[in-house]
Amino acid sequence: MGISPKAFAKMSERLSSGETRSPASGPANQSMGSGPVRILGIDPSLRGTGFGLITARGQKMEYLDSGTIVCPRTWPHSRCLLKIFEGLSDAIQAHSPEVCVIEGLFFAKNSKTALVMGQARGACMVAASRAGLPIYEIAARKVKQAIVGFGGAQKIAVAKMVERMLELKETPSPDAGDALALAMTFTLESRSRIAKPIERI
Amino acid sequence: MGISPKAFAKMSERLSSGETRSPASGPANQSMGSGPVRILGIDPSLRGTGFGLITARGQKMEYLDSGTIVCPRTWPHSRCLLKIFEGLSDAIQAHSPEVCVIEGLFFAKNSKTALVMGQARGACMVAASRAGLPIYEIAARKVKQAIVGFGGAQKIAVAKMVERMLELKETPSPDAGDALALAMTFTLESRSRIAKPIERI
Repeated sequence: MGISPKAFAKMSERLSSGETRSPASGPANQSMGSGPVRILGIDPSLRGTGFGLITARGQKMEYLDSGTIVCPRTWPHSRCLLKIFEGLSDAIQAHSPEVCVIEGLFFAKNSKTALVMGQARGACMVAASRAGLPIYEIAARKVKQAIVGFGGAQKIAVAKMVERMLELKETPSPDAGDALALAMTFTLESRSRIAKPIERI
Repeated sequence: MGISPKAFAKMSERLSSGETRSPASGPANQSMGSGPVRILGIDPSLRGTGFGLITARGQKMEYLDSGTIVCPRTWPHSRCLLKIFEGLSDAIQAHSPEVCVIEGLFFAKNSKTALVMGQARGACMVAASRAGLPIYEIAARKVKQAIVGFGGAQKIAVAKMVERMLELKETPSPDAGDALALAMTFTLESRSRIAKPIERI
């Protein structure tokens, strides 16, 4: 399984177009050499955190694993956060990724939504940080731009494109698809000499 | 060390006055019997999370431990969240509290502030939840009302009152003071037959 050189070239082109830039600063692009790197992408959410793991070898990207950590609406927040933390810790232990990429800060409808989203993000970041992984963030818009070519693309469009690019047998769930797309965008950005550095958080 | 019956009566009176009610729902008051209970209070913040531990025996409250988990402004968020998680995990292991009380949802100035605060809260909740502690939340206003008698009281006023009530040798840091005040308010609320149940999260 792998991404085709043609698709890679298209994605690189999109990334260097500068249409959607995250407010990047700090170190980053030098974080990946040319050897294989296992990347964990995370799309945090209290009720459905998506995660996706790929191996990047040069321009080739291979699918490793993905899933959604689902928490029923009846569960108290603390129980969901623990499940997120444990689910990600298990995935990290199983695949030993070297880098973590998380969906960037977004601007929520209101501060209560942002606080709940922040809690889920905190649980994810503790799991990755505890395993010694550096954590980077990329804005959702930038990921959509890189994968689908349109910053306002829907989740299902991202998942369909991820399926095609990683040559999966079926479409990943939208949350897992977003997480895989994050890991793929990170690979492309890190190897690009044009793109602005991705922010480490 | 312990809180005087007179001070206890005053605090109970304040709590039952109904001046500041958190939007409570769910189970709670029955969570504490009449035996001694160790309570961990947490005031989450990315750069200075306060924690405080007390033992409650009937109307008596005894100081166990407290502190502030300080993270320099130069640290990335992920490093702070890990330190918060590890610092609280250490305190939990050292004192084996049975209950955790966290400062309630607040309404931030903007969604970015709320997201950062949420991350710190998430790290705290994972630490407590992982140790099997039930987590409750009480609004800051309600704590100030119970301890100082005024919902808009400043942090230092809360710390001074905590010092006096727990007969400490010195004033706790404002963040540790808030955390101790949370644990004390939980004790009073849980033993009150009048107060509305505290929300479990």
